[in-house]
Amino acid sequence: MTATEQQLALIKQSIKSVPDYPKPGILFRDVTSLLEDPHAYAASIALLADRYRDAGLTKIVGTEARGFLFGAPVALALGLGFVPVRKPGKLPRETISENYVLEYGTDSLEIHKDAIVPGDKVLVVDDLLATGGTIGATVKLIRRLGGDVQDAAFVINLVDLGGETLLNGIGVTSYSLVLFPGH
Amino acid sequence: MTATEQQLALIKQSIKSVPDYPKPGILFRDVTSLLEDPHAYAASIALLADRYRDAGLTKIVGTEARGFLFGAPVALALGLGFVPVRKPGKLPRETISENYVLEYGTDSLEIHKDAIVPGDKVLVVDDLLATGGTIGATVKLIRRLGGDVQDAAFVINLVDLGGETLLNGIGVTSYSLVLFPGH
Repeated sequence: MTATEQQLALIKQSIKSVPDYPKPGILFRDVTSLLEDPHAYAASIALLADRYRDAGLTKIVGTEARGFLFGAPVALALGLGFVPVRKPGKLPRETISENYVLEYGTDSLEIHKDAIVPGDKVLVVDDLLATGGTIGATVKLIRRLGGDVQDAAFVINLVDLGGETLLNGIGVTSYSLVLFPGH
Repeated sequence: MTATEQQLALIKQSIKSVPDYPKPGILFRDVTSLLEDPHAYAASIALLADRYRDAGLTKIVGTEARGFLFGAPVALALGLGFVPVRKPGKLPRETISENYVLEYGTDSLEIHKDAIVPGDKVLVVDDLLATGGTIGATVKLIRRLGGDVQDAAFVINLVDLGGETLLNGIGVTSYSLVLFPGH
Protein backbone atom coordinates (compact mmCIF):
# COMPACT_ATOMS: atom_id res chain seq x y z
CA MET A 1 0.00 0.00 0.00
CA THR A 2 1.13 3.57 -0.68
CA ALA A 3 1.21 6.07 2.20
CA THR A 4 -2.05 7.56 0.94
CA GLU A 5 -3.73 4.15 0.76
CA GLN A 6 -2.58 3.47 4.34
CA GLN A 7 -4.08 6.77 5.48
CA LEU A 8 -7.37 6.03 3.69
CA ALA A 9 -7.50 2.57 5.31
CA LEU A 10 -6.89 4.16 8.73
CA ILE A 11 -9.70 6.66 8.11
CA LYS A 12 -12.14 3.96 6.96
CA GLN A 13 -11.33 1.71 9.95
CA SER A 14 -11.88 4.60 12.36
CA ILE A 15 -15.51 5.08 11.26
CA LYS A 16 -17.84 3.03 13.45
CA SER A 17 -20.94 1.44 11.92
CA VAL A 18 -24.00 1.69 14.16
CA PRO A 19 -26.85 -0.73 13.30
CA ASP A 20 -30.49 0.44 13.42
CA TYR A 21 -29.75 4.16 13.80
CA PRO A 22 -31.60 6.46 13.45
CA LYS A 23 -34.20 3.76 12.74
CA PRO A 24 -34.39 -0.03 12.25
CA GLY A 25 -32.62 -1.30 9.14
CA ILE A 26 -30.26 1.68 8.79
CA LEU A 27 -26.53 1.07 9.24
CA PHE A 28 -25.26 4.49 10.33
CA ARG A 29 -21.66 5.52 9.56
CA ASP A 30 -20.44 7.49 12.56
CA VAL A 31 -17.67 10.06 12.08
CA THR A 32 -17.42 10.86 15.80
CA SER A 33 -15.14 7.83 16.21
CA LEU A 34 -12.92 9.29 13.47
CA LEU A 35 -12.75 12.63 15.32
CA GLU A 36 -11.70 10.83 18.49
CA ASP A 37 -8.74 9.19 16.67
CA PRO A 38 -6.21 12.01 16.24
CA HIS A 39 -4.23 10.21 13.51
CA ALA A 40 -7.29 9.40 11.43
CA TYR A 41 -8.75 12.89 11.88
CA ALA A 42 -5.47 14.61 10.95
CA ALA A 43 -5.09 12.32 7.92
CA SER A 44 -8.58 13.15 6.65
CA ILE A 45 -7.90 16.89 6.82
CA ALA A 46 -4.43 16.56 5.25
CA LEU A 47 -5.70 14.46 2.33
CA LEU A 48 -8.54 16.87 1.59
CA ALA A 49 -6.35 19.97 1.92
CA ASP A 50 -3.56 18.49 -0.24
CA ARG A 51 -6.02 17.66 -3.01
CA TYR A 52 -7.17 21.28 -3.33
CA ARG A 53 -3.96 23.16 -2.41
CA ASP A 54 -3.30 24.32 -5.97
CA ALA A 55 -6.92 24.63 -7.08
CA GLY A 56 -7.05 28.42 -6.82
CA LEU A 57 -9.83 28.35 -4.24
CA THR A 58 -10.84 31.52 -2.41
CA LYS A 59 -13.29 30.15 0.20
CA ILE A 60 -14.40 26.96 1.94
CA VAL A 61 -18.10 26.48 2.77
CA GLY A 62 -19.35 23.93 5.31
CA THR A 63 -22.85 23.06 6.46
CA GLU A 64 -24.00 22.86 10.10
CA ALA A 65 -23.06 20.95 12.14
CA ARG A 66 -20.81 18.07 11.06
CA GLY A 67 -19.64 19.96 7.99
CA PHE A 68 -17.98 22.42 10.39
CA LEU A 69 -15.76 19.59 11.71
CA PHE A 70 -14.11 19.05 8.33
CA GLY A 71 -14.66 22.28 6.39
CA ALA A 72 -13.18 24.59 9.02
CA PRO A 73 -9.92 22.63 9.47
CA VAL A 74 -9.53 22.35 5.68
CA ALA A 75 -9.97 26.14 5.42
CA LEU A 76 -7.32 26.66 8.10
CA ALA A 77 -4.93 24.21 6.39
CA LEU A 78 -5.32 26.09 3.09
CA GLY A 79 -5.15 29.58 4.64
CA LEU A 80 -8.67 30.41 3.44
CA GLY A 81 -11.73 31.87 5.11
CA PHE A 82 -14.49 29.52 6.25
CA VAL A 83 -18.15 30.30 5.51
CA PRO A 84 -20.77 28.48 7.62
CA VAL A 85 -24.14 27.49 6.14
CA ARG A 86 -26.63 27.14 8.99
CA LYS A 87 -30.15 26.18 9.97
CA PRO A 88 -32.73 29.02 9.94
CA GLY A 89 -32.32 31.79 12.51
CA LYS A 90 -28.74 30.98 13.51
CA LEU A 91 -26.86 33.59 11.46
CA PRO A 92 -27.11 37.11 12.87
CA ARG A 93 -26.60 39.27 9.78
CA GLU A 94 -28.54 39.52 6.50
CA THR A 95 -29.05 36.08 4.96
CA ILE A 96 -30.52 34.31 1.95
CA SER A 97 -32.13 30.89 2.32
CA GLU A 98 -32.90 27.76 0.30
CA ASN A 99 -35.35 24.96 1.03
CA TYR A 100 -34.51 21.32 0.56
CA VAL A 101 -36.56 18.16 0.73
CA LEU A 102 -36.28 15.70 3.61
CA GLU A 103 -37.79 12.21 3.80
CA TYR A 104 -40.82 13.81 5.46
CA GLY A 105 -41.30 17.52 4.78
CA THR A 106 -38.73 20.21 4.02
CA ASP A 107 -36.08 22.17 5.86
CA SER A 108 -34.00 25.18 4.89
CA LEU A 109 -30.45 26.47 5.06
CA GLU A 110 -29.09 30.01 5.25
CA ILE A 111 -25.89 31.84 4.35
CA HIS A 112 -24.80 35.40 5.12
CA LYS A 113 -25.41 37.57 2.07
CA ASP A 114 -21.92 39.11 2.26
CA ALA A 115 -20.08 35.81 2.85
CA ILE A 116 -19.56 35.07 -0.85
CA VAL A 117 -18.65 37.68 -3.46
CA PRO A 118 -19.02 37.28 -7.23
CA GLY A 119 -16.07 35.36 -8.60
CA ASP A 120 -15.29 33.46 -5.40
CA LYS A 121 -13.99 29.98 -6.15
CA VAL A 122 -15.60 27.79 -3.52
CA LEU A 123 -15.06 24.27 -2.22
CA VAL A 124 -17.99 22.79 -0.31
CA VAL A 125 -16.92 20.35 2.42
CA ASP A 126 -19.16 18.00 4.38
CA ASP A 127 -18.74 14.84 6.36
CA LEU A 128 -21.05 12.66 4.32
CA LEU A 129 -22.68 12.52 0.89
CA ALA A 130 -26.00 10.65 1.01
CA THR A 131 -28.88 11.82 -1.20
CA GLY A 132 -27.20 15.19 -1.71
CA GLY A 133 -30.14 17.35 -0.57
CA THR A 134 -28.30 19.62 1.83
CA ILE A 135 -25.32 19.98 -0.51
CA GLY A 136 -27.60 20.82 -3.41
CA ALA A 137 -29.18 23.62 -1.34
CA THR A 138 -25.72 24.82 -0.29
CA VAL A 139 -24.59 24.97 -3.94
CA LYS A 140 -27.68 27.05 -4.81
CA LEU A 141 -26.93 29.52 -2.00
CA ILE A 142 -23.33 29.97 -3.19
CA ARG A 143 -24.38 30.44 -6.82
CA ARG A 144 -27.09 32.98 -5.93
CA LEU A 145 -24.33 35.13 -4.39
CA GLY A 146 -22.19 34.83 -7.54
CA GLY A 147 -19.76 32.19 -6.27
CA ASP A 148 -18.37 29.44 -8.47
CA VAL A 149 -18.54 25.98 -6.85
CA GLN A 150 -15.30 24.28 -7.91
CA ASP A 151 -15.94 20.93 -6.26
CA ALA A 152 -17.66 19.26 -3.29
CA ALA A 153 -15.54 17.14 -0.95
CA PHE A 154 -16.69 14.53 1.57
CA VAL A 155 -15.15 12.16 4.03
CA ILE A 156 -17.78 9.50 3.27
CA ASN A 157 -19.84 8.79 0.17
CA LEU A 158 -22.80 6.41 0.64
CA VAL A 159 -22.58 5.42 -3.01
CA ASP A 160 -26.00 3.80 -3.45
CA LEU A 161 -27.97 6.86 -2.35
CA GLY A 162 -27.53 8.91 -5.50
CA GLY A 163 -25.77 11.99 -4.12
CA GLU A 164 -23.09 12.03 -6.82
CA THR A 165 -25.73 11.81 -9.54
CA LEU A 166 -27.72 14.68 -8.00
CA LEU A 167 -24.58 16.83 -7.82
CA ASN A 168 -23.57 15.96 -11.39
CA GLY A 169 -27.07 16.97 -12.48
CA ILE A 170 -26.45 20.50 -11.18
CA GLY A 171 -22.95 20.62 -12.66
CA VAL A 172 -20.96 19.92 -9.50
CA THR A 173 -18.14 17.37 -9.40
CA SER A 174 -17.31 15.68 -6.11
CA TYR A 175 -14.62 13.73 -4.32
CA SER A 176 -14.89 11.47 -1.26
CA LEU A 177 -12.18 9.91 0.86
CA VAL A 178 -14.00 6.65 1.60
CA LEU A 179 -16.94 4.83 0.08
CA PHE A 180 -19.59 2.73 1.76
CA PRO A 181 -22.74 1.17 0.25
CA GLY A 182 -25.99 2.96 1.14
CA HIS A 183 -27.87 1.85 4.21
CA MET B 1 2.43 45.93 20.96
CA THR B 2 3.86 42.42 21.20
CA ALA B 3 3.14 39.91 18.45
CA THR B 4 0.52 38.29 20.67
CA GLU B 5 -1.17 41.62 21.40
CA GLN B 6 -1.26 42.32 17.66
CA GLN B 7 -2.91 38.93 17.03
CA LEU B 8 -5.46 39.56 19.78
CA ALA B 9 -6.26 42.98 18.32
CA LEU B 10 -6.72 41.41 14.89
CA ILE B 11 -9.06 38.80 16.36
CA LYS B 12 -11.12 41.40 18.23
CA GLN B 13 -11.42 43.64 15.17
CA SER B 14 -12.59 40.72 13.04
CA ILE B 15 -15.63 40.09 15.26
CA LYS B 16 -18.66 42.02 13.96
CA SER B 17 -21.15 43.47 16.42
CA VAL B 18 -24.76 43.09 15.30
CA PRO B 19 -27.29 45.35 17.04
CA ASP B 20 -30.70 44.04 18.12
CA TYR B 21 -29.94 40.36 17.50
CA PRO B 22 -31.48 37.96 18.43
CA LYS B 23 -33.84 40.57 19.96
CA PRO B 24 -34.04 44.34 20.50
CA GLY B 25 -31.40 45.69 22.86
CA ILE B 26 -28.92 42.83 22.41
CA LEU B 27 -25.57 43.62 20.76
CA PHE B 28 -24.58 40.25 19.31
CA ARG B 29 -20.88 39.39 18.86
CA ASP B 30 -20.61 37.47 15.60
CA VAL B 31 -17.73 35.02 15.15
CA THR B 32 -18.66 34.20 11.55
CA SER B 33 -16.77 37.33 10.45
CA LEU B 34 -13.71 35.98 12.31
CA LEU B 35 -14.00 32.65 10.47
CA GLU B 36 -14.12 34.47 7.16
CA ASP B 37 -10.81 36.25 7.93
CA PRO B 38 -8.15 33.55 7.50
CA HIS B 39 -5.48 35.46 9.46
CA ALA B 40 -7.73 36.14 12.43
CA TYR B 41 -9.11 32.59 12.42
CA ALA B 42 -5.63 31.01 12.25
CA ALA B 43 -4.39 33.35 15.00
CA SER B 44 -7.25 32.37 17.32
CA ILE B 45 -6.50 28.66 16.91
CA ALA B 46 -2.73 29.16 17.29
CA LEU B 47 -3.08 31.23 20.48
CA LEU B 48 -5.41 28.69 22.08
CA ALA B 49 -3.30 25.69 21.03
CA ASP B 50 -0.05 27.32 22.19
CA ARG B 51 -1.50 28.05 25.60
CA TYR B 52 -2.33 24.38 26.24
CA ARG B 53 0.49 22.64 24.34
CA ASP B 54 2.34 21.53 27.50
CA ALA B 55 -0.73 21.09 29.72
CA GLY B 56 -0.76 17.28 29.49
CA LEU B 57 -4.23 17.22 27.94
CA THR B 58 -5.64 13.99 26.52
CA LYS B 59 -8.85 15.23 24.85
CA ILE B 60 -10.62 18.34 23.58
CA VAL B 61 -14.39 18.66 23.99
CA GLY B 62 -16.51 21.13 22.01
CA THR B 63 -20.22 21.85 22.04
CA GLU B 64 -22.51 21.94 18.99
CA ALA B 65 -22.38 23.88 16.74
CA ARG B 66 -20.01 26.88 17.07
CA GLY B 67 -17.82 25.06 19.59
CA PHE B 68 -16.92 22.67 16.75
CA LEU B 69 -15.38 25.58 14.82
CA PHE B 70 -12.75 26.22 17.48
CA GLY B 71 -12.50 22.98 19.47
CA ALA B 72 -11.86 20.71 16.49
CA PRO B 73 -9.01 22.82 15.02
CA VAL B 74 -7.42 23.15 18.49
CA ALA B 75 -7.58 19.34 18.85
CA LEU B 76 -5.91 18.92 15.44
CA ALA B 77 -3.23 21.49 16.33
CA LEU B 78 -2.44 19.62 19.56
CA GLY B 79 -2.63 16.13 18.01
CA LEU B 80 -5.53 15.16 20.28
CA GLY B 81 -8.89 13.55 19.67
CA PHE B 82 -11.98 15.76 19.51
CA VAL B 83 -15.16 14.83 21.38
CA PRO B 84 -18.41 16.49 20.25
CA VAL B 85 -21.16 17.37 22.74
CA ARG B 86 -24.45 17.59 20.86
CA LYS B 87 -28.13 18.37 21.08
CA PRO B 88 -30.43 15.41 21.92
CA GLY B 89 -30.75 12.65 19.34
CA LYS B 90 -27.73 13.61 17.23
CA LEU B 91 -25.17 11.11 18.56
CA PRO B 92 -25.71 7.56 17.26
CA ARG B 93 -24.13 5.46 20.01
CA GLU B 94 -24.90 5.14 23.74
CA THR B 95 -25.03 8.56 25.39
CA ILE B 96 -25.53 10.29 28.74
CA SER B 97 -27.31 13.64 28.92
CA GLU B 98 -27.54 16.75 31.10
CA ASN B 99 -30.22 19.42 31.24
CA TYR B 100 -29.43 23.11 31.44
CA VAL B 101 -31.56 26.18 31.96
CA LEU B 102 -32.36 28.62 29.16
CA GLU B 103 -33.99 32.02 29.49
CA TYR B 104 -37.33 30.28 28.91
CA GLY B 105 -37.37 26.57 29.72
CA THR B 106 -34.60 23.98 29.57
CA ASP B 107 -32.58 22.14 26.93
CA SER B 108 -30.19 19.23 27.14
CA LEU B 109 -26.83 18.10 25.82
CA GLU B 110 -25.45 14.63 25.17
CA ILE B 111 -22.04 12.94 24.97
CA HIS B 112 -21.10 9.43 23.88
CA LYS B 113 -20.59 7.26 26.94
CA ASP B 114 -17.28 5.88 25.62
CA ALA B 115 -15.89 9.26 24.49
CA ILE B 116 -14.23 10.05 27.83
CA VAL B 117 -12.41 7.49 29.99
CA PRO B 118 -11.56 7.90 33.69
CA GLY B 119 -8.40 9.98 34.06
CA ASP B 120 -8.80 11.88 30.77
CA LYS B 121 -7.48 15.42 31.08
CA VAL B 122 -9.93 17.51 29.14
CA LEU B 123 -10.02 21.03 27.74
CA VAL B 124 -13.47 22.37 26.89
CA VAL B 125 -13.45 24.84 23.97
CA ASP B 126 -16.31 27.07 22.87
CA ASP B 127 -16.69 30.24 20.86
CA LEU B 128 -18.30 32.34 23.56
CA LEU B 129 -18.74 32.42 27.34
CA ALA B 130 -22.00 34.16 28.31
CA THR B 131 -23.96 32.86 31.32
CA GLY B 132 -22.04 29.56 31.24
CA GLY B 133 -25.11 27.29 31.11
CA THR B 134 -24.04 25.08 28.22
CA ILE B 135 -20.45 24.86 29.46
CA GLY B 136 -21.64 23.95 32.95
CA ALA B 137 -23.67 21.07 31.49
CA THR B 138 -20.69 20.01 29.36
CA VAL B 139 -18.43 19.93 32.45
CA LYS B 140 -20.97 17.74 34.26
CA LEU B 141 -21.07 15.28 31.34
CA ILE B 142 -17.26 14.99 31.30
CA ARG B 143 -17.07 14.49 35.06
CA ARG B 144 -19.81 11.83 35.09
CA LEU B 145 -17.59 9.81 32.73
CA GLY B 146 -14.57 10.24 35.03
CA GLY B 147 -12.79 12.96 33.05
CA ASP B 148 -10.88 15.79 34.69
CA VAL B 149 -11.73 19.22 33.24
CA GLN B 150 -8.40 21.07 33.20
CA ASP B 151 -9.70 24.39 31.87
CA ALA B 152 -12.35 25.95 29.64
CA ALA B 153 -11.19 28.14 26.73
CA PHE B 154 -13.21 30.66 24.75
CA VAL B 155 -12.66 33.09 21.92
CA ILE B 156 -15.01 35.64 23.52
CA ASN B 157 -16.00 36.28 27.13
CA LEU B 158 -19.05 38.52 27.66
CA VAL B 159 -17.69 39.53 31.04
CA ASP B 160 -20.85 41.02 32.58
CA LEU B 161 -22.94 37.86 32.16
CA GLY B 162 -21.41 35.86 34.98
CA GLY B 163 -20.06 32.86 33.09
CA GLU B 164 -16.65 32.96 34.77
CA THR B 165 -18.28 33.06 38.22
CA LEU B 166 -20.54 30.11 37.36
CA LEU B 167 -17.52 28.10 36.18
CA ASN B 168 -15.45 29.03 39.23
CA GLY B 169 -18.36 27.88 41.37
CA ILE B 170 -18.05 24.38 39.93
CA GLY B 171 -14.26 24.40 40.20
CA VAL B 172 -13.43 25.19 36.56
CA THR B 173 -10.92 27.86 35.57
CA SER B 174 -11.25 29.55 32.21
CA TYR B 175 -9.39 31.61 29.65
CA SER B 176 -10.75 33.81 26.86
CA LEU B 177 -8.92 35.49 23.99
CA VAL B 178 -11.03 38.66 23.89
CA LEU B 179 -13.38 40.37 26.30
CA PHE B 180 -16.54 42.33 25.59
CA PRO B 181 -19.07 43.74 28.04
CA GLY B 182 -22.35 41.82 28.24
CA HIS B 183 -25.20 42.86 25.98
